[in-house]
Amino acid sequence: MTYCVAMRLDAGLVFLSDSRTNAGVDQVGTFRKMSVFEVAGDRTIVLMTAGNLSISQSVRQVVAEQTTANGKSIWTARTMYEAAQIVGEAIRKVHQRDAESLHNFGIDFNVSMILGGQIKGERSRLFQLYAAGNFIEAHSESPYFQIGEAKYGKPIIDRVIVPRTSLDEAAKCALISMDSTLRSNISVGLPLDLLIYETDKLAVSRYVKIDENNKYFQMIRNSWGGQLKALFNGIEDPVWNTADDSVDGLAASAELHNELACVPIPASVAKSNPPSALPLQTLAQHDYNVKQP
Amino acid sequence: MTYCVAMRLDAGLVFLSDSRTNAGVDQVGTFRKMSVFEVAGDRTIVLMTAGNLSISQSVRQVVAEQTTANGKSIWTARTMYEAAQIVGEAIRKVHQRDAESLHNFGIDFNVSMILGGQIKGERSRLFQLYAAGNFIEAHSESPYFQIGEAKYGKPIIDRVIVPRTSLDEAAKCALISMDSTLRSNISVGLPLDLLIYETDKLAVSRYVKIDENNKYFQMIRNSWGGQLKALFNGIEDPVWNTADDSVDGLAASAELHNELACVPIPASVAKSNPPSALPLQTLAQHDYNVKQP
Repeated sequence: MTYCVAMRLDAGLVFLSDSRTNAGVDQVGTFRKMSVFEVAGDRTIVLMTAGNLSISQSVRQVVAEQTTANGKSIWTARTMYEAAQIVGEAIRKVHQRDAESLHNFGIDFNVSMILGGQIKGERSRLFQLYAAGNFIEAHSESPYFQIGEAKYGKPIIDRVIVPRTSLDEAAKCALISMDSTLRSNISVGLPLDLLIYETDKLAVSRYVKIDENNKYFQMIRNSWGGQLKALFNGIEDPVWNTADDSVDGLAASAELHNELACVPIPASVAKSNPPSALPLQTLAQHDYNVKQP
Repeated sequence: MTYCVAMRLDAGLVFLSDSRTNAGVDQVGTFRKMSVFEVAGDRTIVLMTAGNLSISQSVRQVVAEQTTANGKSIWTARTMYEAAQIVGEAIRKVHQRDAESLHNFGIDFNVSMILGGQIKGERSRLFQLYAAGNFIEAHSESPYFQIGEAKYGKPIIDRVIVPRTSLDEAAKCALISMDSTLRSNISVGLPLDLLIYETDKLAVSRYVKIDENNKYFQMIRNSWGGQLKALFNGIEDPVWNTADDSVDGLAASAELHNELACVPIPASVAKSNPPSALPLQTLAQHDYNVKQP
């Protein structure tokens, strides 16, 4: 499996990918999933891939080499939209070549990609591409894309990332999102590729390959996990009242028993078993203390 | 979609389910996914369901009514293992009746269940059942099960829940896990059913249906989101050094460029474009301040 995330911010783009691939759990490998197409001063384009590794690698190769029917290549495209079309066409080319043979072996044509970057004369742009070669673009309301094992790491991004988030904060968020994913899914693994693109640099300015010895990622893993537990402990536990404490006493308890979706006991069983004498407790509706940050 | 989670702790069991069902995004309904089979003083058994609603409801009905070939029913099973077998048989019965017709309409026989509770003479036990009617049991090392839209809410459970966690803490954790899921997936929705079973009570003691007016859940939503952001802000941003700052200067930068998996520029393009003069920055390997809780 794979986890890749990219964010489009006012200040630029952040890309993070893991490097674990697996075919079943007993065939696990390390392959980089991030490629950079750069002509300094003219364009910086980053491609991240998830899905079948043979498809991903073939698409990457075709993207690097192909010139389309109308003479366009990733090296000469005038806009990121054109670049996304070129990658989409590369996916379709590989589909045409491989999909039927894969299908004969019961293997889906499964691939998804994130493409982001800047071409001189345009702003930074970010796209997500599907196996059919079609694609969507990130906008201010949805400033990020994830591919692969996306769900574990989504909540923290949803809570933190907006277009005005700084590049370093976004990198920190991407790493926390990755940490949550690494902990909950063994099929995602180190090393990570973290790349930061500052708008209008037209060259990669910040990049690091993160392995288990990276001190910043170690700090994130240790701080975040421990602090999350402290935050958790700091939130009040629920307070339970007996429903019979209320004025309408038994009525409230009976209502609760109805709410509870208890399956009626068959008559044969009920005969020898009286109904529960235990009053149901319910969550107190008092004012809990909202912890402010 | 659905999200249900159950935890097996030393002190008892915690169950939480949402109530959103949907067939596509334009046919959204509210159905309870938690059912209780209780004979006070003898057994309390909780069943939660995910998957195709018609299948779930049929299985629930069959479980409530059926007596198996060897004379066992959910009301008379001697152990929770027998109860799980009875639910498994009910799934197989509905499969036999409906699967082919569903298949003719291109619909998978898709259902999963969590079954937990206690029968007099035994400890509390927790099972997860699959569409084939087979099942697994929770143990100390894996003290919880989730069905439905499980991934968004998994990281916080992985970080917090161990068998000695108290019932109230576990309920709080389940609600935070649900809150993360609600935020990241609109197909999971309120109201929630939260049920707490204390070992050896042999009756439901704590139950609440949680809607948007529930003050405890409101507090969780407000506290957790805000505090998570504060925690996030409290963690240091990364510090970047120019790779050329190191003693081996350009060598380090060139190595980094290799690590970066830059696709080679074709000769035709490279001719008119000099390589990047921008020194690559990388994450400083200094000691970051690990925030202790």
